[in-house]
Amino acid sequence: DDKGFTLASADDSNRLRLRGLMQADSRWYGDGGAKGRDSFVLRRARVMLEGQFSNIFRFQFVPEYGGSSFTLMDANVAIDFAPSAQLKIGKFKAPFGLARLQSDAWAALTEPSFIAQIAPSRDIGVQLGGSFFGGALDYQVGVFNGVGDGRSNQDNTDSDDDKDVYARIFAHPFKSLKDSPLAGLGIGIAGSHGRQNTRQGLTAGYRTSGQQTLFTYASDNGAGNYDTSLPTHTGEIWRISPQAYYYYGPFGLLAEYVTSTTHVRPNAGQDAMRITNKAWQVTSGWVLTGENASYDGVTPARPFSVERGTWGAFELVARYDHIDVDNDVFPILANPAESATEAASWGVGLNWYLTRAVRFSVDYNQTDPKDSGLAAPTGTVLKKGEKVILTRAQITF
Amino acid sequence: DDKGFTLASADDSNRLRLRGLMQADSRWYGDGGAKGRDSFVLRRARVMLEGQFSNIFRFQFVPEYGGSSFTLMDANVAIDFAPSAQLKIGKFKAPFGLARLQSDAWAALTEPSFIAQIAPSRDIGVQLGGSFFGGALDYQVGVFNGVGDGRSNQDNTDSDDDKDVYARIFAHPFKSLKDSPLAGLGIGIAGSHGRQNTRQGLTAGYRTSGQQTLFTYASDNGAGNYDTSLPTHTGEIWRISPQAYYYYGPFGLLAEYVTSTTHVRPNAGQDAMRITNKAWQVTSGWVLTGENASYDGVTPARPFSVERGTWGAFELVARYDHIDVDNDVFPILANPAESATEAASWGVGLNWYLTRAVRFSVDYNQTDPKDSGLAAPTGTVLKKGEKVILTRAQITF
Amino acid sequence: DDKGFTLASADDSNRLRLRGLMQADSRWYGDGGAKGRDSFVLRRARVMLEGQFSNIFRFQFVPEYGGSSFTLMDANVAIDFAPSAQLKIGKFKAPFGLARLQSDAWAALTEPSFIAQIAPSRDIGVQLGGSFFGGALDYQVGVFNGVGDGRSNQDNTDSDDDKDVYARIFAHPFKSLKDSPLAGLGIGIAGSHGRQNTRQGLTAGYRTSGQQTLFTYASDNGAGNYDTSLPTHTGEIWRISPQAYYYYGPFGLLAEYVTSTTHVRPNAGQDAMRITNKAWQVTSGWVLTGENASYDGVTPARPFSVERGTWGAFELVARYDHIDVDNDVFPILANPAESATEAASWGVGLNWYLTRAVRFSVDYNQTDPKDSGLAAPTGTVLKKGEKVILTRAQITF
Repeated sequence: DDKGFTLASADDSNRLRLRGLMQADSRWYGDGGAKGRDSFVLRRARVMLEGQFSNIFRFQFVPEYGGSSFTLMDANVAIDFAPSAQLKIGKFKAPFGLARLQSDAWAALTEPSFIAQIAPSRDIGVQLGGSFFGGALDYQVGVFNGVGDGRSNQDNTDSDDDKDVYARIFAHPFKSLKDSPLAGLGIGIAGSHGRQNTRQGLTAGYRTSGQQTLFTYASDNGAGNYDTSLPTHTGEIWRISPQAYYYYGPFGLLAEYVTSTTHVRPNAGQDAMRITNKAWQVTSGWVLTGENASYDGVTPARPFSVERGTWGAFELVARYDHIDVDNDVFPILANPAESATEAASWGVGLNWYLTRAVRFSVDYNQTDPKDSGLAAPTGTVLKKGEKVILTRAQITF
Repeated sequence: DDKGFTLASADDSNRLRLRGLMQADSRWYGDGGAKGRDSFVLRRARVMLEGQFSNIFRFQFVPEYGGSSFTLMDANVAIDFAPSAQLKIGKFKAPFGLARLQSDAWAALTEPSFIAQIAPSRDIGVQLGGSFFGGALDYQVGVFNGVGDGRSNQDNTDSDDDKDVYARIFAHPFKSLKDSPLAGLGIGIAGSHGRQNTRQGLTAGYRTSGQQTLFTYASDNGAGNYDTSLPTHTGEIWRISPQAYYYYGPFGLLAEYVTSTTHVRPNAGQDAMRITNKAWQVTSGWVLTGENASYDGVTPARPFSVERGTWGAFELVARYDHIDVDNDVFPILANPAESATEAASWGVGLNWYLTRAVRFSVDYNQTDPKDSGLAAPTGTVLKKGEKVILTRAQITF
Repeated sequence: DDKGFTLASADDSNRLRLRGLMQADSRWYGDGGAKGRDSFVLRRARVMLEGQFSNIFRFQFVPEYGGSSFTLMDANVAIDFAPSAQLKIGKFKAPFGLARLQSDAWAALTEPSFIAQIAPSRDIGVQLGGSFFGGALDYQVGVFNGVGDGRSNQDNTDSDDDKDVYARIFAHPFKSLKDSPLAGLGIGIAGSHGRQNTRQGLTAGYRTSGQQTLFTYASDNGAGNYDTSLPTHTGEIWRISPQAYYYYGPFGLLAEYVTSTTHVRPNAGQDAMRITNKAWQVTSGWVLTGENASYDGVTPARPFSVERGTWGAFELVARYDHIDVDNDVFPILANPAESATEAASWGVGLNWYLTRAVRFSVDYNQTDPKDSGLAAPTGTVLKKGEKVILTRAQITF
């Protein structure tokens, strides 16, 4: 199944699980939009070790070998004092974005929405979390090094002294009503607050579905040219994200909104400006072959088999997402000829689950950026937007 | 044995195999040739995960921890529709060179021949392959990002929009005649064709057995000095390689030839020149202790044991190989004082298989380069050639 | 337990063991000393593969994913000809420092003493070792690439032609007297000798417990400024380290001394100076809950359990260590305003073993440096020393 391969001690109190995730993608850019590089891409290649000791101690260990460099995604120790009190220490996904917290194997579309450009990814710290009322209410609170929009903790250490606080609650109010059409409703809110005092506190750039840069901070280098290495983050940073999903039979819906307020200094010696960027997304899916949709993937009723002539499950997915960069960034904190002030994006895709472990998918994604009007656009992504077909062959276990 | 350690589900339809390859080498350069750095070297250190799901889905996952940096060697998903139709997606060895496609554990000599300087290594793409006539005919065709001579795909993405097509057939015409002396004959041909439009399309340099640079592209920086960062690849690239092996009892022979035609531009604004480089090699071995030689290693009849007083298997190997760089490269595309236009190399070695999993070996390799005659050689490798002793302690499972 | 998870062949002659070590730390600097960056740090994240074939072949494979970059810690093959003759080839801890040779999971305090700044860490080479008299006498001799003070072998190859020889003996003279209070006494001496001819032969800098730089080689760049990139190592390097430990019931004591003589050249064209640096440390511990202290960790009699109301084991530890840099380095080889000529450090800590696999610890460490008197100190570490609290959550199996 997709739970990996397990080594256990005789009394089953110690267990080690070996898991993996591999995503071999391809990207094909339409001429109607900005041309990225048509490529076969090894997007993710992860081996995961998960363990449990004496029933109450757990650990997780996830190196990533795909992409442009090796990184350590997750490495953490947890103690389950009680279902309502689980302590987790180390590196893991910050308790914030709903789509971010979903397993990378089960995202509806190939590349994440604009939300992922703002919601933090992995961070290092300490978290207390758990469930109440039989799983009807989940919470997490934690202290972390803190990261910029869409970033993961770099170099496995902090870039400044200040720490960030995260909190998130997520409820399944009708979970106990098993036959109710509302049983699959989940709704919550997450927030973070801290200070960032280095360039690590800034986004590395907001990107399109085709991974082209749509917006990046830059400021005048004194000679009238924009330099992306000059702006830095100095001061408070906070984010809020209301979020919900709803699953009912083959139908699924996931929606979230995020707003991030940061303090960006254009240049050494200048004052930081308070900047608020926002994004939202709605993703929906329909499993054509009738299996249940879920936050944790689709299990085909009849897995693909040449002998039996069965095909597995098919799912249609669609997403609309939108990002809105603070108008105040232009022209002091970003180049109006190259960075968008706003962008809408939509995508449709077909996911083919041959088995739960093997999924093929193909998406079409289109991004339509809007410029600030302060300068004639010269950047091709800003001028032409993007039209891209993404394919993925995925194995997960 | 050398097939690793296996975790299986109860019905054996899902299996995960853990394998490894470690090669701890040393290099000692004779004063008669160019002096490389005498070193203990950690040449390869790989963990391999291979899995199978529902009997028809397979994956392979091979990170490399040895050498100068971590790289991901293989990461791919395969579907076995039928023995004659196996689809493979992701990163793996491009279907081209016969010695390249041999497991890195079973190469006869420590370092590969000049063929490996031209034949592509790992690439990312999609391949269809399989066997006909009970394994008497194998084929592979595929579309890949495309790589320069002797290279692997860098950064897990493409460096340009164009793709390369590969095709290879390999026959064992007498495979069904099990007792025939010809049963162990394999013969085939491989080709590739595509376009490369960046420096990634060029070789990173042709090297000796002792891993010293024998040839590298370089062009005039305008001040009369050669600069290796100036030449780039612009245009078509194609390669052809006839190849064969023959195994009969303790005797083994492997021969291949490769020609690569590329288009190299000396400098921005100049025209690309069409360049054809060639190499060939013959490798032969004799298992002194009588076990069968094979493309997949030697299994000692009496593994090494202090108690039983047994020693394992010993194999004598020898290789002659030759590379011929297009004469047109001098003096516009390469420095005639430092790069060879031709080189012959020979090596002899002794391989000691303590068990199938543990092999010690020692080689002597000599490289004799030839200069273009356009300038007095100043590079020590070009002037003096190379004499090097290589040792290896290998464990594979 | 802490021996990992094992896959074995039916006859148990082939075994693969999967192990792991993860350390999630935090660092908090007191204002009374130099301020490092308060951080959550992923200090170590290792997966270990250890295997055994045909009972006499072993291998070890340890990639490190924590810290600032991925590195390969250990990768070696061993043949056990006899208990007194074990050959080891590849990368592993050089047979030198007593605390260095202790498992990274069982160090008494979070960060190592000044000894670790001088004693070599991992190196690549060949070692013969073993035990006599039923383990009462251990020895190791080996030839390695050679590394600078406190360094590991970089890039998995050597930086010069010369090799280093290591030798170490360690005795447990009263081991056979099981009930004697002296049974847990171990005493030994280690030495190394070789030549280093590159900057790799120099320390990368002696550091405090809080990982701030206390001393680094630097020389005049001609304009009167110190440049750390100018000094290099040219010539002989040797080290000697007498070492001992003593364990008796809950009490433990570990003491070692090291002296390192190197030849440092301030600048190209100048003569190398002979420099001798020294360090020593004494570490002691007391297991408050009465379990036995040992070189290989503490096993709690009553592991932590919410249900049973048990807490595990607690251990108090303390350390005093001292480093003495050769006075001759000032002012030609180091900046007297920034580098210390001497430093004392002490630390106290509490280790909480919830189970053998899970340990939490908290330390207080203070470093008091002494300047050379040749210039007014400007470096904050030299001026103010360091006061740091280190915490660690560790899982090992």
